[in-house]
Amino acid sequence: MASQGHTLKAFDEDLDRLRALITEMGGRAEHAIIEAMRCLSERDGDAALKVIEDDKRIDALEAETERRVIQLIALRAPMAGDLRDVVAALKISGVVERIGDYAKNIAKRVPLLEDAGKIEPLSLLPEMARIAVQMVHDVLNAFVQRDAEAAIRVCERDRAVDDFYDSVFRTLLTHMMENPHKIGQSAHLLFVAKNLERVGDHATNIAEMVYYAATGQQMADRVKGAEGLSV
Amino acid sequence: MASQGHTLKAFDEDLDRLRALITEMGGRAEHAIIEAMRCLSERDGDAALKVIEDDKRIDALEAETERRVIQLIALRAPMAGDLRDVVAALKISGVVERIGDYAKNIAKRVPLLEDAGKIEPLSLLPEMARIAVQMVHDVLNAFVQRDAEAAIRVCERDRAVDDFYDSVFRTLLTHMMENPHKIGQSAHLLFVAKNLERVGDHATNIAEMVYYAATGQQMADRVKGAEGLSV
Repeated sequence: MASQGHTLKAFDEDLDRLRALITEMGGRAEHAIIEAMRCLSERDGDAALKVIEDDKRIDALEAETERRVIQLIALRAPMAGDLRDVVAALKISGVVERIGDYAKNIAKRVPLLEDAGKIEPLSLLPEMARIAVQMVHDVLNAFVQRDAEAAIRVCERDRAVDDFYDSVFRTLLTHMMENPHKIGQSAHLLFVAKNLERVGDHATNIAEMVYYAATGQQMADRVKGAEGLSV
Repeated sequence: MASQGHTLKAFDEDLDRLRALITEMGGRAEHAIIEAMRCLSERDGDAALKVIEDDKRIDALEAETERRVIQLIALRAPMAGDLRDVVAALKISGVVERIGDYAKNIAKRVPLLEDAGKIEPLSLLPEMARIAVQMVHDVLNAFVQRDAEAAIRVCERDRAVDDFYDSVFRTLLTHMMENPHKIGQSAHLLFVAKNLERVGDHATNIAEMVYYAATGQQMADRVKGAEGLSV
């Protein structure tokens, strides 16, 4: 039993390190989204280049997570709930990496908006970003604490981001019709809004992974919310 | 040795079944993209609903892949190259599932374009879809055959899809300026073009996973191509 206890303790420490890696990735991805939105609002092209550059660190953390997951499986041969946790860590790190990619994509659009002058709908986007990033933050906390209920609560907030997106989409179309000379810049903002909406979707995806890892059950469709025909 | 040989044979059979699952997922995702584009071109709303419904089958195949990967790791404790292959299968199934989501997203836009009349740039999109889907097809073949060189060749073709996207983006903006009453429908086509461009990106992501699984090395940045500032 002592040996078994030692093995379990070593596994728990490995798992804690995995969770710490994902928390670090999450913190960086959250910061990248908020900072990319600031760069867009303030047309800060230099800082946007740094957001793009810093994404490499998130990619490297994902690769490190994968290496450690493989090492952990090979050394510790985890079973059942432990194996679900490890596989969830691998999948979640992949999703967080994509959230980092969205931040990078937003940052890449900053120079394309430099000469755009004022585009009113842009002012809506930082608040949308804040809601989506808070979902990411909360769902990664739910992962670290294996809190299936907290994961459900994150899913329930995705509708707010979707509604925000629909509103921004309509506002941008109106802006395009009224300002045809700014259609290009407005189109870039459509993609920024879509990226933020996708960040909310990804938080929901992570919530489903957290729920499955913590309970061994798939989250019910009822909880995830009816999908409808929204695009 | 007989026992070891037996174990290896059982592992190889498990891995073959995983590869067959991913090939089936890939076939369905490829078909879904092409069919969604046909629905869009021909305004076939009924068939578009079927594309949306059929995506559930791709999601179910991803869940089955994950279950089998976990079972395979627990039962066979694969090491080194074998473990890389299994982890690659898990990650690739996640990417193929997202390609299915893009098809579903395109299908959801079909009813939004029903009253649009003729939008000339739409005629460019099926060819873009064909190139991106062929990349997916070829990279999944490379996975099944553990062919790192074929994976590299897929990456090299992503530039063609990106160039196609840039051209479609500009064409759609011009169309929007000249047809402000069709700005909404054109905006939906911008997202369709972006989805297809992302399918090409995902084929490249899979190629990197195939290369790593087959060789144990990361694909060099030189091969992946300079990223530049494209959005």
